[in-house]
Amino acid sequence: MQYLDKEQIAANFSMEEAIAACKEALELYSAGRADIPLRTNIDVPENNGQALFMPGYVSGSTPALGIKIVSVFPDNIKANLPSVPATMLTMDAKTGIVNAVLDGTFLTQLRTGAVQGAATDLLARKDAKIGLLIGTGGQGFQQLRAMLTVRNFEKMYIFDIDQARAQAFAKEVATSLAAFGVEFEAVADVNAVVGECDVITTVTTAKVPTFDGSLVKPGCHINGVGAYTLEMHELPETALVKAAKIFTDTDDGVLAEAGDVVGALEKGTITKEDLSGELGQLVSHPELGRQSAKDITVFKTVGTSALDVVVADKIVRKIQG
Amino acid sequence: MQYLDKEQIAANFSMEEAIAACKEALELYSAGRADIPLRTNIDVPENNGQALFMPGYVSGSTPALGIKIVSVFPDNIKANLPSVPATMLTMDAKTGIVNAVLDGTFLTQLRTGAVQGAATDLLARKDAKIGLLIGTGGQGFQQLRAMLTVRNFEKMYIFDIDQARAQAFAKEVATSLAAFGVEFEAVADVNAVVGECDVITTVTTAKVPTFDGSLVKPGCHINGVGAYTLEMHELPETALVKAAKIFTDTDDGVLAEAGDVVGALEKGTITKEDLSGELGQLVSHPELGRQSAKDITVFKTVGTSALDVVVADKIVRKIQG
Repeated sequence: MQYLDKEQIAANFSMEEAIAACKEALELYSAGRADIPLRTNIDVPENNGQALFMPGYVSGSTPALGIKIVSVFPDNIKANLPSVPATMLTMDAKTGIVNAVLDGTFLTQLRTGAVQGAATDLLARKDAKIGLLIGTGGQGFQQLRAMLTVRNFEKMYIFDIDQARAQAFAKEVATSLAAFGVEFEAVADVNAVVGECDVITTVTTAKVPTFDGSLVKPGCHINGVGAYTLEMHELPETALVKAAKIFTDTDDGVLAEAGDVVGALEKGTITKEDLSGELGQLVSHPELGRQSAKDITVFKTVGTSALDVVVADKIVRKIQG
Repeated sequence: MQYLDKEQIAANFSMEEAIAACKEALELYSAGRADIPLRTNIDVPENNGQALFMPGYVSGSTPALGIKIVSVFPDNIKANLPSVPATMLTMDAKTGIVNAVLDGTFLTQLRTGAVQGAATDLLARKDAKIGLLIGTGGQGFQQLRAMLTVRNFEKMYIFDIDQARAQAFAKEVATSLAAFGVEFEAVADVNAVVGECDVITTVTTAKVPTFDGSLVKPGCHINGVGAYTLEMHELPETALVKAAKIFTDTDDGVLAEAGDVVGALEKGTITKEDLSGELGQLVSHPELGRQSAKDITVFKTVGTSALDVVVADKIVRKIQG
């Protein structure tokens, strides 16, 4: 029983590999090859906590089986512990034997970055030069890394409602991501730069849009990574309206959980016909994507266990050989 | 993340501790303090397998949270691998953080032995001297050890439909369980000895009764450990009819899964009024148990995740301190 921590995973599994794994996972999901049962939630009222058990199976050339366990214990903060600790457990789908336990928090960051990278790769203009990351919390670093992996950016703007955090983040990535040769700039006014950007990735828990959608320029690709409950509204409706294509990671997930997309549908500013399909369909049919250099494209992800089990399985296969 | 294998668990956690943990688990279960969601099953048809995910939470003075994962892959036999590999994962119920992974196969053997030990302790005559173990498969050893732990037996008969296996088992335990100072005797005809026995434990997957219930003597206590599907009928109906008390580990579990008890109820040879309640009620109310030295008592167990999470939690607390 091998435990794979953040350092071991990062040292052995690249963002390119994670992006390829996410494409494979979503393609199999959209082809009906994933068995993702309803999540089991157990409340732990004595400690104001909840444990979420998310097993899944994806059959393919290398079938993947496992379970991610995420605990939501807000009071952990008081003890200086993670408030949403996560653990991933993988099984050999040939034998059913548990073969590894992974740092689930890092896995989530990696696969959430990678699925955005997959979408950016499939939807953004090839000549994208200027990017924008909105939100520099726990997911920010892998989101940035994923964008940088799939396009040759020259400049990357960084924004956070906590301006000091944005500046610290920009300073940190100027060192840790120096190999990409990109200029990082923390900005105080996000809407002052939105109009320049070829790719915008927003990854926040905001209940109001994180930027002015009317300022988005033609040809821009937007990733909505943050809003994963019906209360969250991160993507501006104007951007959804202006979009030529809106792809999801999974239609079921987005229609059940993404407050910004669901809210726009309920208000009638967009209709279900404006949803272009799932990213997994785009993997096998790239002709369904961007039709012109001026198209605005949107990718909305809320996550699926299919991503967890496939990415974790690839990591374990790579490390265990 | 600590992995606890069979040797570490066995070296640090006694059968007495396991029995105490099972009593606590069932008492809390019967008091409505256990949250055991429906099991999630994922089929892996490509490999003729199925993975079962069984999370649970038991609140008490030391709350226990975790999940047991059992895979049923019959074809593993061909590769000389266990056909029902199992893994237990425990979490700190204060923080939701996964704190250990345990050999789930050994945990199952230990807690299944211990729950029978708890029942034998609560129901058998104190002066029980002669015992009988029917079935010497994977569960046999801990079943025997549990009986020996709670009563001062002088003689223990061993029976298996595979007579050579029974003899090998008797020879093995004569060494490994020598400390109990008991005489072990493998018998070829189980019904030749049933009438002598104060305690009978049957742990098989038999579809027909494993002994003649009409031969059971007054005062005998019988444990039905094996039949855990509706197709299995291990306990003889005559024994159920003769019993003054029939206790279950959980009424819900037994009424859903135990073929021998359900079959007798359906045929009308016993009625629901003949079921005396759950062992957990007996823990807090021992006066509900055996009323006379001549009572025949029966305990039927099919298992519950409450046993897994509580026993595993006690093991982890003991080892991690």
